[in-house]
Amino acid sequence: MKLLYPTSLILDTKSLEGFSVSLHPYDVTVPIPDTLIDAEILVTWTNKSENLRDAAARMKNLRWIQSLAAGPNDVLSAGFDASRIAITTGSGCHDETVAEHALGMLLNAARKFYAMRDYQNKGVWPGHLGGPQPDRAPGTFTTLKGANVTIWGFGNIAKCLAPVLTALGANVTGVARSAGVRNGFEVVGEDALSDVLKKTDALVMILPGSDSTNGALGRERLALLPKHAWVVNVGRGTSVDEGALVEALEKGEIGGAALDVFSVEPLPASSPLYTAPNLVLSPHAAGGRPRDAEALIAYNLRRLLAGQELKNLI
Amino acid sequence: MKLLYPTSLILDTKSLEGFSVSLHPYDVTVPIPDTLIDAEILVTWTNKSENLRDAAARMKNLRWIQSLAAGPNDVLSAGFDASRIAITTGSGCHDETVAEHALGMLLNAARKFYAMRDYQNKGVWPGHLGGPQPDRAPGTFTTLKGANVTIWGFGNIAKCLAPVLTALGANVTGVARSAGVRNGFEVVGEDALSDVLKKTDALVMILPGSDSTNGALGRERLALLPKHAWVVNVGRGTSVDEGALVEALEKGEIGGAALDVFSVEPLPASSPLYTAPNLVLSPHAAGGRPRDAEALIAYNLRRLLAGQELKNLI
Repeated sequence: MKLLYPTSLILDTKSLEGFSVSLHPYDVTVPIPDTLIDAEILVTWTNKSENLRDAAARMKNLRWIQSLAAGPNDVLSAGFDASRIAITTGSGCHDETVAEHALGMLLNAARKFYAMRDYQNKGVWPGHLGGPQPDRAPGTFTTLKGANVTIWGFGNIAKCLAPVLTALGANVTGVARSAGVRNGFEVVGEDALSDVLKKTDALVMILPGSDSTNGALGRERLALLPKHAWVVNVGRGTSVDEGALVEALEKGEIGGAALDVFSVEPLPASSPLYTAPNLVLSPHAAGGRPRDAEALIAYNLRRLLAGQELKNLI
Repeated sequence: MKLLYPTSLILDTKSLEGFSVSLHPYDVTVPIPDTLIDAEILVTWTNKSENLRDAAARMKNLRWIQSLAAGPNDVLSAGFDASRIAITTGSGCHDETVAEHALGMLLNAARKFYAMRDYQNKGVWPGHLGGPQPDRAPGTFTTLKGANVTIWGFGNIAKCLAPVLTALGANVTGVARSAGVRNGFEVVGEDALSDVLKKTDALVMILPGSDSTNGALGRERLALLPKHAWVVNVGRGTSVDEGALVEALEKGEIGGAALDVFSVEPLPASSPLYTAPNLVLSPHAAGGRPRDAEALIAYNLRRLLAGQELKNLI
């Protein structure tokens, strides 16, 4: 059996040896070479759409595609025969990286590094942002200690982020479609969202992109947030109504927003988001670096060979 | 017995009740009023030097001064009679706040939020800082996961910071005057500093200001750091040779520097630090917000009344 792995990222292929499978590197930017076209297994990462469309047409023996993306829309839209080919996602390979980025954005907001940067660029010492100041004054978000952090979308990324927030003294509440306790954190249903938003100091959105999450954070829900509250979005840009967000920022109805994802990427130069007050922009940089992909590939390879159901199966 | 507490910060004085001591607020910007001048205990925070000099001259019953500053140079230089008056510091009230700021600076460096901000301000999408990218490529500092973080000055702030860094996957090594294991972290002596610097991805400096720490990080030690290494300073500005640092940044000999403290504050407009490449400036904002000061005051009050030695005694 042949497994094709992409050269678009560095993989420790040594850790994939020992199976009755031969391992072959391939270039994701060009069609799969004829000598490899009979492979049963394809691992994908940032493949060109031409590469995938060609693979869908020509790889007649393909049984399994392991994407390393959390949401492999590229593979799903390439025309592979889903009745015959198992497609698995890279879910889990991005938990740590996205959680770390979200934490960095929260601290950027609380500690006002973005505002300090603006002063530095003007050659001005921002004395009012330093020196003696109140600790946790009411109606401010200046530290994670004691802050009410709401994580909307409580999946694996949230489970990675929440314990670190707790270690820094935050009170974490999750919001998801079904309520319950997950990994020791209270998760409320979306029916309780309004009450939770009113008490939120920082809202971290980690919602997947779908019709049901489209515009999930709109004008009405933004209005429920306290005036000092920050919004951090590391999920999908479509889950935030960007127009309503800009309006809330311009009117000072919320404290600020740190966005890593946008409804259109790259964000067009004409977007008012670039200059909205207290808006911090990050260019879809939270994930995009699959971590421990080898472990996922090896685990699913073992299950494939044993005839068991694959992990992260779509 | 009278205890005077400053109105320069919000204190929960309810938590100080129950002792045989009367509690009186005072304004740190003017002389202590005649009616309070017989007080035995003075709590200080951001007092005007005139206030302290006047108190030193007129408060004849004073037995104890509890400063809320980590290094109460203001009190020490005001002329109080040290043979008669116990002076205690606010050490411990700044551990969490400084540790949080240091963490934020490390993530600002690793996740390049400062560089993203510069692009945002130009209205340009910094696509090269986002999207697919290698995870933990050799010779980079792009995440705390797996990063070798060296904390030089391993006191209470470091003990607060180190576990969070570990939770995020960093390998923490402490450096202090005496080697050993502190709170489960390996701390090496300064004789091992050269070896540690060579393997450091991020160096966090939390050294106190003193003659012995003056210029501790100079040209020679900077040269030992890898080209991608970052320097974070939340200790005292004098511990870094700023001229040597600017030179190292301009020559690309280190990855960058995030400084919260400077040899002269406010940093003069003429300083090359404002524009040095990959230098991130923060205006002495890490601490300056005493946390849980009430607990320290109450603890020392109890010990004073019991005739026991005070905590944080100079």
